Amino acid sequence: MNRLVGILFAVIATNGVGFAQQQDSIFLRKIYDEALSRGKAYEDLRSLCKDVGARLSGSSQAEMAVEWGKARLEAYGFDTVYLQEIKVPHWERGTKESAWIKSNKELIPVKILALGGSVSTQGTRKAELVVFKNLDALRAANKSQVAGKIVFINQPMDEKMINTFKAYGACYAIRGEGAIEAAKLGAVGVVIRSLGLPSDDHPHTGSMHYDEKVAKIPAAAISTEDANRIQKMVDQKLPIEFIFEMDCRNYPDATSYNVIAEITGSEKPNEIITFGGHLDSWDAGEGAHDDGAGIVHCMEALRILKVLNYKPKHTLRVVFFMNEENGNRGGMSYATWTKARGETQIAALESDRGGFVPRGFACDGSDQQVRFLQSLEKHFKPYELHVFEKGYGGVDIGPLKSEFPSIPLFGFVPDSQRYFDFHHAESDVFEAVNKRELELGCAAISSMIYLLDLYF
Amino acid sequence: MNRLVGILFAVIATNGVGFAQQQDSIFLRKIYDEALSRGKAYEDLRSLCKDVGARLSGSSQAEMAVEWGKARLEAYGFDTVYLQEIKVPHWERGTKESAWIKSNKELIPVKILALGGSVSTQGTRKAELVVFKNLDALRAANKSQVAGKIVFINQPMDEKMINTFKAYGACYAIRGEGAIEAAKLGAVGVVIRSLGLPSDDHPHTGSMHYDEKVAKIPAAAISTEDANRIQKMVDQKLPIEFIFEMDCRNYPDATSYNVIAEITGSEKPNEIITFGGHLDSWDAGEGAHDDGAGIVHCMEALRILKVLNYKPKHTLRVVFFMNEENGNRGGMSYATWTKARGETQIAALESDRGGFVPRGFACDGSDQQVRFLQSLEKHFKPYELHVFEKGYGGVDIGPLKSEFPSIPLFGFVPDSQRYFDFHHAESDVFEAVNKRELELGCAAISSMIYLLDLYF
Repeated sequence: MNRLVGILFAVIATNGVGFAQQQDSIFLRKIYDEALSRGKAYEDLRSLCKDVGARLSGSSQAEMAVEWGKARLEAYGFDTVYLQEIKVPHWERGTKESAWIKSNKELIPVKILALGGSVSTQGTRKAELVVFKNLDALRAANKSQVAGKIVFINQPMDEKMINTFKAYGACYAIRGEGAIEAAKLGAVGVVIRSLGLPSDDHPHTGSMHYDEKVAKIPAAAISTEDANRIQKMVDQKLPIEFIFEMDCRNYPDATSYNVIAEITGSEKPNEIITFGGHLDSWDAGEGAHDDGAGIVHCMEALRILKVLNYKPKHTLRVVFFMNEENGNRGGMSYATWTKARGETQIAALESDRGGFVPRGFACDGSDQQVRFLQSLEKHFKPYELHVFEKGYGGVDIGPLKSEFPSIPLFGFVPDSQRYFDFHHAESDVFEAVNKRELELGCAAISSMIYLLDLYF
Repeated sequence: MNRLVGILFAVIATNGVGFAQQQDSIFLRKIYDEALSRGKAYEDLRSLCKDVGARLSGSSQAEMAVEWGKARLEAYGFDTVYLQEIKVPHWERGTKESAWIKSNKELIPVKILALGGSVSTQGTRKAELVVFKNLDALRAANKSQVAGKIVFINQPMDEKMINTFKAYGACYAIRGEGAIEAAKLGAVGVVIRSLGLPSDDHPHTGSMHYDEKVAKIPAAAISTEDANRIQKMVDQKLPIEFIFEMDCRNYPDATSYNVIAEITGSEKPNEIITFGGHLDSWDAGEGAHDDGAGIVHCMEALRILKVLNYKPKHTLRVVFFMNEENGNRGGMSYATWTKARGETQIAALESDRGGFVPRGFACDGSDQQVRFLQSLEKHFKPYELHVFEKGYGGVDIGPLKSEFPSIPLFGFVPDSQRYFDFHHAESDVFEAVNKRELELGCAAISSMIYLLDLYF
């Protein structure tokens, strides 16, 4: 059956309330009962956060995370558990950073986190600080304003945006491109206001880029509170010197792995439904919401289907992707690898927006595929999910689109309000995840995979 | 205009997308901007929790809360701020409780909280512990099984229920009626498993009742972890003695107050829209979610409308109700008092389900009134609210129904998943409330009051 005709058929079929829908309703209730009463996700997350910890690509923690993931998946007894070897970038923060601002001979310590990929300061770097409100303002500046100075870009995330990911997206460029734009004008360093929503005292890191044609200058984030403090000094026309030291190092690419587990399809084993999160994390905090939650969401989703003795038509494959944070090598390698094996990827789902209370799912796909997603909403009504709309899938599953152009990518959508309290920061620890909210996410994803297997 | 015809008209009027809806859309955006960018609610909540603290009716903290509330409302410059005098019960926990379980000569300390209203143990009380799984099992027991013993009712909240308030409702009777049923069979004390969802180490208190025809026995809650520990010992057939001391005291009724602030209606000043939360709290924690959040939600909702220079048609009245937790004297007195003043109460709204991310509103009203509520959903789409349905209003506004039978009561519905982590327990502190989630609640309530004033 043609895939699109199949979708249309499924939309019609699932819109009729009948025996099948009743069976689905009973099965979803079983999924939720298992997740909420006998769930393993919270303990799995505790173990990943506390026994392994933060796990940046190429680090020994990331290596341990691979072992951890393989062992957990094997313990759950899935049909197949294996590793897909990949090469990942290997950047390390080195010795903990230190920084100060100096103004009128007063020295104030500032917490900083090097942005991921930054070069070292090569000892202490100090220079006058020059402030810009966003990247456009920096781009509009003259070399004479910037050369020899350290640039501070103080663009706050817009707290008025209801969807916090949109507020994040609007600021993303200061982290990604700030060092390039500052260096073009001769700056000797760049400091950004953290991409975090609350006013608090810890910086948020994240990936940044260089341009091979432009000098590489060290780049760091400071907390929103320190950003506000500096802005106040700037508004008072106080001269500010910024002093920092960072010991970042780039190493040759390292060997690492995507960790994979499957329940083999009973009818169409070569047609795959891929779902996962990313196993790597930034090196601050414990990578609990980002993306320990996604890892345990998906492992638990498959475990529940197995415990309930569900025999999928298609192969259900969980992938713990490596290196989402600074390279997406896991996602890219996976897409070419599955294509080369002659597999057909029929749908993919990612959880990488935290372990918060579920709101629904987004679909990066055709209008028909979005309508299919919308046809599933009725199944989730008892579970208070209400977002079933066109939207973003996920970074790791994104490359599948190049290899399988008609594949729909589904993004799990939890509530976004608290995500940027924790994102890429020392606050992203196990204790920041609520057990029940996490479990509801597992059940939602397990239910979605079941419905995709049956009806897509 | 007849109220019901008015509702129908409003439903039709607000269903057409036109100039009015566009104006409303702009105004709601202003409300949200004020709440999210220049909001006062979070600092108000900090002050209520930290400067006043827990505030049980009749306590000096409750007295200070009244002063605090009046002063804050006056500082915001509303048209009128005043107190409504009431009488409230005055129960005190007394010296901190202590308890142990003793089994095979091993002595294990147990954290307890007297249930609100309990009598003292009159020194140490110790007796064999007899366990029942719920109130029906206790009711079915014989006197010989219970007489002279301490009854432990170990009914867990059902974590499989998606709406946690339903799980709470299903267990409520063990706290409210447990002492009566146990005493009927000659028990000398009753201990309940806390009405809390997570497995944790602190008890949750709450109100309980006596029957004047039955002996009054002391009643306490233990944590879910201790409840599980005791159950395990019971399952192992270990003999268990329970030992506890509580120093609870009942005092004569005390004078207290509902705290009231208004913006006077420009067209119909005698027609009132009442909205509020309750100012009293249990004496564990700081009453942050229950119901400090409701207090600052409603104060902020009115402040925003004032700052935006909104001139309401009807009188908008915020009420900080006193004594919701153990008597509802504030709610009952308010209903008779407003009726006696010849006022017309046209709609009421309560926030008493915590400071979590908003989901929507429930309406305790006629089908037409529920349809009116549903007609407002479109205004809240940009703000991710999606619950607009028949449901519960609130304890404090409940008595208004007796005096104004056709009044619709609206309950603010935040997400319920984390509420019973904190309810009536030492964990219900300021730090458990997320700033942004709180502010989104203020904006939702302010918007709702605006729409009620315009269209109801």
